[in-house]
Order: sequence, then structure tokens, then C-alpha cells
Amino acid sequence: MGASFVAEQRVLYGDTDAMGIAYYANYLKWFEIGRTELFRLVGSSYQEVEVRGCFLPVYEAYCRYLKPARYDDIIHIETRFSFEGKARMRFYYRLFHKQSGFLLAEGYTVHVCTDEEGRPLKPPVYLKEMLQQMERVQGGNSSS
Amino acid sequence: MGASFVAEQRVLYGDTDAMGIAYYANYLKWFEIGRTELFRLVGSSYQEVEVRGCFLPVYEAYCRYLKPARYDDIIHIETRFSFEGKARMRFYYRLFHKQSGFLLAEGYTVHVCTDEEGRPLKPPVYLKEMLQQMERVQGGNSSS
Amino acid sequence: MGASFVAEQRVLYGDTDAMGIAYYANYLKWFEIGRTELFRLVGSSYQEVEVRGCFLPVYEAYCRYLKPARYDDIIHIETRFSFEGKARMRFYYRLFHKQSGFLLAEGYTVHVCTDEEGRPLKPPVYLKEMLQQMERVQGGNSSS
Amino acid sequence: MGASFVAEQRVLYGDTDAMGIAYYANYLKWFEIGRTELFRLVGSSYQEVEVRGCFLPVYEAYCRYLKPARYDDIIHIETRFSFEGKARMRFYYRLFHKQSGFLLAEGYTVHVCTDEEGRPLKPPVYLKEMLQQMERVQGGNSSS
Repeated sequence: MGASFVAEQRVLYGDTDAMGIAYYANYLKWFEIGRTELFRLVGSSYQEVEVRGCFLPVYEAYCRYLKPARYDDIIHIETRFSFEGKARMRFYYRLFHKQSGFLLAEGYTVHVCTDEEGRPLKPPVYLKEMLQQMERVQGGNSSS
Repeated sequence: MGASFVAEQRVLYGDTDAMGIAYYANYLKWFEIGRTELFRLVGSSYQEVEVRGCFLPVYEAYCRYLKPARYDDIIHIETRFSFEGKARMRFYYRLFHKQSGFLLAEGYTVHVCTDEEGRPLKPPVYLKEMLQQMERVQGGNSSS
Repeated sequence: MGASFVAEQRVLYGDTDAMGIAYYANYLKWFEIGRTELFRLVGSSYQEVEVRGCFLPVYEAYCRYLKPARYDDIIHIETRFSFEGKARMRFYYRLFHKQSGFLLAEGYTVHVCTDEEGRPLKPPVYLKEMLQQMERVQGGNSSS
Repeated sequence: MGASFVAEQRVLYGDTDAMGIAYYANYLKWFEIGRTELFRLVGSSYQEVEVRGCFLPVYEAYCRYLKPARYDDIIHIETRFSFEGKARMRFYYRLFHKQSGFLLAEGYTVHVCTDEEGRPLKPPVYLKEMLQQMERVQGGNSSS
């Protein structure tokens, strides 16, 4: 059983807000880091996907905030992937506080496949294979 | 029949990404503008709520992205409020492209009430009354 | 004697940091709002400049932070323009606290003119005329 | 001869703008990463400084943009420190493109020392010693 990839990112001062905790929109940036590193884990990159003519804009994003992330915390970003029908892709994220192991937040993003002009595109074979590989590397739980 | 409040915001260069469209995390900032202006519509401000000892951190956030917002577009932010049980507050947002009237995105945020240390707090009377007033000003649809 | 244009922007929660004041990088976004509105003041827009094939990337940016901007403050953004030699453009900014009139920050950005690929470009006539018009509308001081 | 510390950060999609390059305000976030890691290099953290009652808000920030940083680039952040008189602290930054070694940008931030309320504070002994140590670890050039 494989493990979903864990990327990490430190909370910057610029990520926090006047409540002294990370601003809620910034979690979506950490989600981006998670899915980006998942592409790298299967030997590619999201950039390569774009170079080959596919764009994966976000169609839906959801986050549940369980415990606040604070300045200088290290966030572990666990990411999983699954197909959603033939044309949609879903990434799941869990953000953990590195030192304590606490689950800070969890959520997902749903993506569609388009060409450079934003027109819907059937995911080409190379992309499908890359994403199927992402599904395979997962199965376990590697939360810190 | 009242109308939900419409705030507006122009898409900055700094809001866009290399896809040439607004980055998905920035929609949550526009949601913030929407709910902030709703507090002002009922004669108060979120700042006043904090000064009086209540904080309303985000517990859940969701956005569905229907059409891309682009550089220099003016976004109309329509916001509605409803209670969710006794202790949770839900704001609904619809973002419209000002000129065309197209719905660009819609979503919601769920908030809880806490004290300054982040401990759960039963919403005090003044906050409840303020939020009930928010519920009342709505009922219609003022989308551009 | 004309007046330099004053745009305004409210400080969002997402603009603040754990120090309870606006994060220093966000002032550069407010600078962007200032220069964008200056293009509009002379009957054009930065977008139109791009559509006609010119890009004005930032070559230098400077900001001096005099008083902190806080959550929910309204910032008045005063912007002036001047040529710097033949190929560089300089925008000056002063950010004022709307209610008190206090000067919060001041700074500048220097821009160069390039084509879409980032290659240096001699500013075309229509751009020069637009920028000369920007120089002319100024001369006074419209700080709140 | 010591070496100034090199932190690294990958350019996110959310860091880029419609010009396809990193948005100019985001360089100041990378500067923050640089100085934060310099505190860690001398065995402390900026957070600890705050816990002990000192805040170091930014008084000036400057950046010169030499070559654009692009999506997925890895940025090497070289940071140096020097005192500026008795009460001001200056951090210098150079951002390099990791793979090519090209200098992308350089700049500085000047900081003052204040208490939690933002009142000027003479830097206490522990902070002075920490910063003197920062000056000592430097002297060479560790650019990638």
C-alpha cells in the first residue's frame, strides 16, 4: 500500500492575519503546493502538462478549518487524487501541524481539463496515464 | 422584499495568474469583501464585533468557479446571510461580471463565534440582533 | 494646476498580518491600484496598453512605511507620473489614511516598456502621448 | 569567511500574474523568507524575538527586478544583515534562479524595533547579540 505524498510549507508572516492565525484564503495556496508536488511524485510536473497543451483550472474548492495554523508553524500537506467521471479530477488535501501531528484543515479541489483558450478538452492519454499513476501511489495514510 | 447587498471590486493584476485569469484563492478575499459590506449595511462593522469581544473565524469555505474573472473586470459581490443552528453563521456569495451580468462564481463560508483566544462563544445578544437584521434585508435578488 | 488622482481601497482582513497591521507587501498592490486608475483618468486603461502590444513590467519598487494601516481603514492612493529618460516611467505614490489624513506610506515604481516576450521596446507614440497627458493632469496636491 | 544563508522557495501558480511571471509584490514575501531563515541560522527565530517583546516592523523596502521569475522556478534567497546606526536594521536580499544561477532580483528592507504597541524601542541586549551574530556569519558569497 503506497502513501499519499506529503509536502511541507512554513507559515509566513504574510500568510497570517490580524486574528494572529493564517488567513483562510491561503490554505488554497497550500492545496496548490500539495497537488503540484503530486505531479512531481509521478515524474512529471503541472508545468509539463501545460506545455503539452492541457490546462486544469479549478472548478470547485472546499476547505474545512479545524485548528488554526499560526506564524512559523510547519504545515504538512497530504494530497490524494481520484478521477471523477471521465473529465473531472479531484484532489483531496489534509493539512497537518508538523510538530503536534494535529489535523489543521482538510478539503478538496475539482479540476476540469481545457485547452489554452479555456475550452473543455477530453484529457489526452498521457495525462490520463499520469493521473492513474497518482491514484496508484496512494492507498495508505502517511500523515505525520 | 429586500435585496442582498452588492459590493464591487476590480480584478487587479496581482489577482491574476499565469493562466491569465483570477487565481482561485482570491475569490475568498472577494467573499470577505462581501460579508464585510453586509455588516456595514446593517449599520455596524465586523471590526465593531471584534472590539466587543467576538471573533467569527471561518470554519468552512466553498467556491464553485463557473466563468473566469479576468484582469480589470469589475466583480459584483452579492452576499446573503443565514443562521445555521444556534452557533453557526452562513454567508452565501455570488460573484457577477459587472458588464455582462454573467455569474462567475458562487459559494459560501460558515463561521463560528469565539472569544479572542479562539474558544467557542455563544453569540451574544447584540450580535444575534445584528445578524437577524442581515437575514431581514434579504429576500430578493439584486444581481447586476 | 491639476491634481494627482486619488483612488481608494479598504484594508481587508486578508491584507493584515499577525502584528495587526497591513502586511508590507500589500502596499505594492495598492500602488498598482493607483497607477491603474491614473491610466483610466487619461481616458485609457493599462489593459488597452497591453492589447496594443506594450507591457510595462516593474523594474524597481520602493516603499517607506510611516504609519501602519489597519484592518478596515480606507486608504487614499495618490499617484503621479513622470518620464525617466526616454524609456523608463516612474510612478510616485502617497498613501493616506482617509479619516485622519495622515500620510501612511510613500514610494515609487519604475517601469520599462517591453513587447509580449519581455524584449525592450521603445515606447510607441500613442503610449508616449498617454503618459504625457498623465504628467499634465498633475501639478497640485489633492491629498485628502 | 562565512557565507550568507540561502533559503529556497518554489514559484507557485498563485505567485504569477497574467504577464506569466511572478507578481512584483510577491518578491517581498520571499524577502521575508530570507530574513526569517537568517534568524534560524543563528539559533533563534523571529517568533522568539516577538515572544520576548520586540517587534521589527518594516520601515523601508526596495526591490530591483532584473529577470522575471516564472511558474515552478526555484528561487534561491540569499540574505545578509547589517546594523544601520543604533536603532535600525538592514537586510539585503539577492534572489537567484536555482538552475541557471541568474540573479533575478535584489533589494533590501530596513526595520525598526518597537514594542507590541508599535512604540520605538531600543534593541535589547539579546537582540543585539543575535543580530551581531548574523553580521559575523556573513562575509562571503554563497550565491548558487
